[in-house]
Amino acid sequence: MQKPLILVTNDDGITAPGLRSLIKFMKEIGDVVVVAPDSPQSGMGHAITINDTLYSKKMIVDVEAGAPEEYSCSGTPADCVKLGLQEILDRKPDICISGINHGSNASINVIYSGTMSAAIEAGIEGVPAIGFSLCDYAWEADFSASKEFVQTIVKEALKNGIPKGVVLNVNIPKLEVKKIKGIKICRQARANWKEKFDKRTSPMGKDYYWLTGEFELLDKGEDTDEWALANGYVSVVPTQFDLTAHHVIQELNSWDV
Amino acid sequence: MQKPLILVTNDDGITAPGLRSLIKFMKEIGDVVVVAPDSPQSGMGHAITINDTLYSKKMIVDVEAGAPEEYSCSGTPADCVKLGLQEILDRKPDICISGINHGSNASINVIYSGTMSAAIEAGIEGVPAIGFSLCDYAWEADFSASKEFVQTIVKEALKNGIPKGVVLNVNIPKLEVKKIKGIKICRQARANWKEKFDKRTSPMGKDYYWLTGEFELLDKGEDTDEWALANGYVSVVPTQFDLTAHHVIQELNSWDV
Repeated sequence: MQKPLILVTNDDGITAPGLRSLIKFMKEIGDVVVVAPDSPQSGMGHAITINDTLYSKKMIVDVEAGAPEEYSCSGTPADCVKLGLQEILDRKPDICISGINHGSNASINVIYSGTMSAAIEAGIEGVPAIGFSLCDYAWEADFSASKEFVQTIVKEALKNGIPKGVVLNVNIPKLEVKKIKGIKICRQARANWKEKFDKRTSPMGKDYYWLTGEFELLDKGEDTDEWALANGYVSVVPTQFDLTAHHVIQELNSWDV
Repeated sequence: MQKPLILVTNDDGITAPGLRSLIKFMKEIGDVVVVAPDSPQSGMGHAITINDTLYSKKMIVDVEAGAPEEYSCSGTPADCVKLGLQEILDRKPDICISGINHGSNASINVIYSGTMSAAIEAGIEGVPAIGFSLCDYAWEADFSASKEFVQTIVKEALKNGIPKGVVLNVNIPKLEVKKIKGIKICRQARANWKEKFDKRTSPMGKDYYWLTGEFELLDKGEDTDEWALANGYVSVVPTQFDLTAHHVIQELNSWDV
């Protein structure tokens, strides 16, 4: 039987430990091709490169037998997926896996997430896709506990398929494997970031800002990704790219327009 | 009665004719403050600037009495809204209007749209918000036919409010005003871009790509934004930032995880 072809990407860049771990986990499941940004692309949302050129380079990162093909790309995570599907791969991959992100993409973070934009781009193009994130922003984060959950979820997705029009947003709590209670299917928690701009003055006397903020959970539900993570579960949110709020179409039809 | 406070932004940059038209239209309805990117940000999706500094400059673009305050910002459309709400405005605006974009943001384009990311950012922060786009990519596009529809929709939104968790994605066909048949509340059409990478070689012998593509409509429904636009209507799609595909949670709960 042919092994599944797995397109692997991320938003922290091709050298990120989360990606290097993910490649190892995926090599045990299928044939892996990596197309990942040549520099960190966190917070890039679903940006694509339309007013600039794109460069791609075949990497020689690993000389062992059976090492996956790897390509770096000068663009965003969504660009990487487009380039991978259109120019690099010979056939449509069986699945696209993005991550493992250094830091949570639960709740409203999905909107800003480069990791999830790569998965969503694959989904738009008809490729089953999953984004994985570990709730630990550190570059030195320990991805060993992620292995079991990442592999289980990818195998189930390959076996069952992922419903059409949906990609999975998976977040893994920062816990030892034996402390993780299991996997929960969740909805996206309502939350936002309470921005704080840190205003500074440059050595040349020019004012500038750093965008910072505090996460504000506005949702007490026990069926959310934030609840699952806070209670020791891996959260899986089915995420769609039909953004229509179907439930308010009726209400808007009463407007006088 | 106090005039409504309107935060105006876009993704084509502070000098774009679509923004300049929108400012004029909005000045007839309320007090306008502009916070817009200092350079074009098309295709930026919901990117935010977290690994770089942000600059903002108060512009002197218009010396007439009652001219709106205008600020340029070095960041993305989402950054502009965050900065506007947090640092520039003294009170929460009554509404945030983004656009008028040069080019369609209907169907799947909403995912890549900087115009809509600004509106969505405002929505996340609890400010009613609308993104407007004209289906004409030209810098010299004629925005005069947009005036009536933009003003009507903004006035209705101020009167009725916009349902919580929803922002409006409004697209205007490239037609004379008398040929536009009216306004339709729609759902997002299913579509994607069939990518084509235009591969070239630089004068230094290095290969590079331009991302191009053809729009592919995959939806024959007559309740979609693409149908409305093709048939001479202004399309209004209620757009949400809870991306949960609630209808598949049950199915995923049958997975063996």
